[in-house]
Amino acid sequence: MTTPDKRTVSGMRPTGPLHLGHYFGVLKNWVEMQHEMEAFFFVADWHALTSDYADPSRIREFVPELVTDWVAAGLDPEKCVMFQQSHIKEHAELHLILSMITPVSWLERNPTYKEQKQEVVNKDLGNYGFLGYPVLMASDILIYHPKWVPVGQDQLPHLELTREIARRFNFLYGDYFPEPEARLTPAAKCPGLDGRKMSKSYGNAIYLRDTMEEIAPKVRGMFTDTNRLRKSDPGNPDVCNLFPYHELMASPEQQAEIRQGCTSASLGCVDCKKIFLENLGAFLGPLHERRAALLANPKGIQDILEAGDARARAEASRIMGGVRDRLNF
Amino acid sequence: MTTPDKRTVSGMRPTGPLHLGHYFGVLKNWVEMQHEMEAFFFVADWHALTSDYADPSRIREFVPELVTDWVAAGLDPEKCVMFQQSHIKEHAELHLILSMITPVSWLERNPTYKEQKQEVVNKDLGNYGFLGYPVLMASDILIYHPKWVPVGQDQLPHLELTREIARRFNFLYGDYFPEPEARLTPAAKCPGLDGRKMSKSYGNAIYLRDTMEEIAPKVRGMFTDTNRLRKSDPGNPDVCNLFPYHELMASPEQQAEIRQGCTSASLGCVDCKKIFLENLGAFLGPLHERRAALLANPKGIQDILEAGDARARAEASRIMGGVRDRLNF
Repeated sequence: MTTPDKRTVSGMRPTGPLHLGHYFGVLKNWVEMQHEMEAFFFVADWHALTSDYADPSRIREFVPELVTDWVAAGLDPEKCVMFQQSHIKEHAELHLILSMITPVSWLERNPTYKEQKQEVVNKDLGNYGFLGYPVLMASDILIYHPKWVPVGQDQLPHLELTREIARRFNFLYGDYFPEPEARLTPAAKCPGLDGRKMSKSYGNAIYLRDTMEEIAPKVRGMFTDTNRLRKSDPGNPDVCNLFPYHELMASPEQQAEIRQGCTSASLGCVDCKKIFLENLGAFLGPLHERRAALLANPKGIQDILEAGDARARAEASRIMGGVRDRLNF
Repeated sequence: MTTPDKRTVSGMRPTGPLHLGHYFGVLKNWVEMQHEMEAFFFVADWHALTSDYADPSRIREFVPELVTDWVAAGLDPEKCVMFQQSHIKEHAELHLILSMITPVSWLERNPTYKEQKQEVVNKDLGNYGFLGYPVLMASDILIYHPKWVPVGQDQLPHLELTREIARRFNFLYGDYFPEPEARLTPAAKCPGLDGRKMSKSYGNAIYLRDTMEEIAPKVRGMFTDTNRLRKSDPGNPDVCNLFPYHELMASPEQQAEIRQGCTSASLGCVDCKKIFLENLGAFLGPLHERRAALLANPKGIQDILEAGDARARAEASRIMGGVRDRLNF
């Protein structure tokens, strides 16, 4: 048995409900990829520990919630493998082995590590596992021999580290790990309600599971073009926090109409928000239907994860066997 | 099921055949402990990778050789559990979890780490796994809830780090890991043939598996008191490289006779070495018999390891389950 030519692996930390930023920044791409190639998507619960080790109590409940969001967003258990990282012990085993061949200096010069150590002040990130999380990430990826890894521009250094670790393993023990290539996720601008980046911790997010009743007041309070004080003032869609969503959800014709209406002051922000709400309703409708169908079956999520775990485990175990052979273990 | 009041865990790296220094420095103590308490002894093959990752090819053959040495030295598979570290994936899993709660600073101030980084020049020790090997060691120990860990004086800082990691886990997630206590191995002086520390890499060792025919010329060439040039010169047992072995193997009466004969120049080094060879023969006889019996059964070692793996796995898996519960995983 060999690994298929086209395969992808990616993961997400279970740290809370997903919002529009997650959908357009990551999930939309995953949904497309599942139709193009064999896809493994995992709930990165061990990774959640690197920063949240002090209080892991909510990780357990976030795991099924995350998978519910995935399936609602269009990941199809018939099309892709969804599984839970900590259920596949081979990730921990490969992590241990790759830790032996990864220079500390590679980890110390990881830009995200340096950045977060400086910026994150409310959590202690001085632990050994945080320094080494690119090693765990490399294990998560390499253990499935993927051809492609979906990443944003800012994650390219991590993927490069994974490739370096693969090269070092291949150099020491003989060719085994293909170097995965970046499949760049198209950048999507998703401002939060207040104009800052959409984020759970800023309290400015529209969640995929929000009902339209919950969303309506959020949208009413949303910042638009803050220089447009009266409806009779012409607006500027290029500095508006709402317009990026029209670019993601409205048809090109509708986008042109909105731009024209806004800049000519014939379309006010209140009406513009109504258009957004309509489009958002049309977008979220199928997501909410899939969510309802899934939640109607109490064992649904569990079944999906169990089936995914079994498929991931079979593959991880096969590829880990090859690692042990090469190490003479 | 709870962990027995008295239990011990210890491991050895599979890096070659064992010599007298290993026996008197470690194994003798293990053999005694197996009669006093439940004992888990493991072949630390993953640990062997921390320094020998560049060429792990011989680790595989060293594993059965090590267990053969153990059984020959008196470890009894009916009395203790002998197993192979890398066969118990739970060690890797616990290692990953403990890596999240262990500050890098604790590892950097580990005296062995600092020492070896300075002194070992022919191997690259700048890898992440070498920095973190006390975390792996803590996992190896804690996952069996032992009461005692046999250590030499120089390993006390490692055990203290294991205790610190246990305390940190208990503080974060609730009491779970008992802090293991040091069972100090009595110091045994085992000089090599040339007077330096007995070590495979110095080529100055008497191995437990050496035949008496192989040992005789080694002992003939052994340094004694280098100031005693003629048999008629009185010797000084306190600076002799042979006398420490009399202290380990000869009866107190015989020791007194030898000391008297040496210092009065009535006993020459050649005859003194004959006494040593006799005592060594009497000491090694039972070891060689057990070795021969073991090797007569081609599946003997494999059976011992498989049975040991099964017992270790059951226990590691039970205790790891408790870890996952405490983390809400």
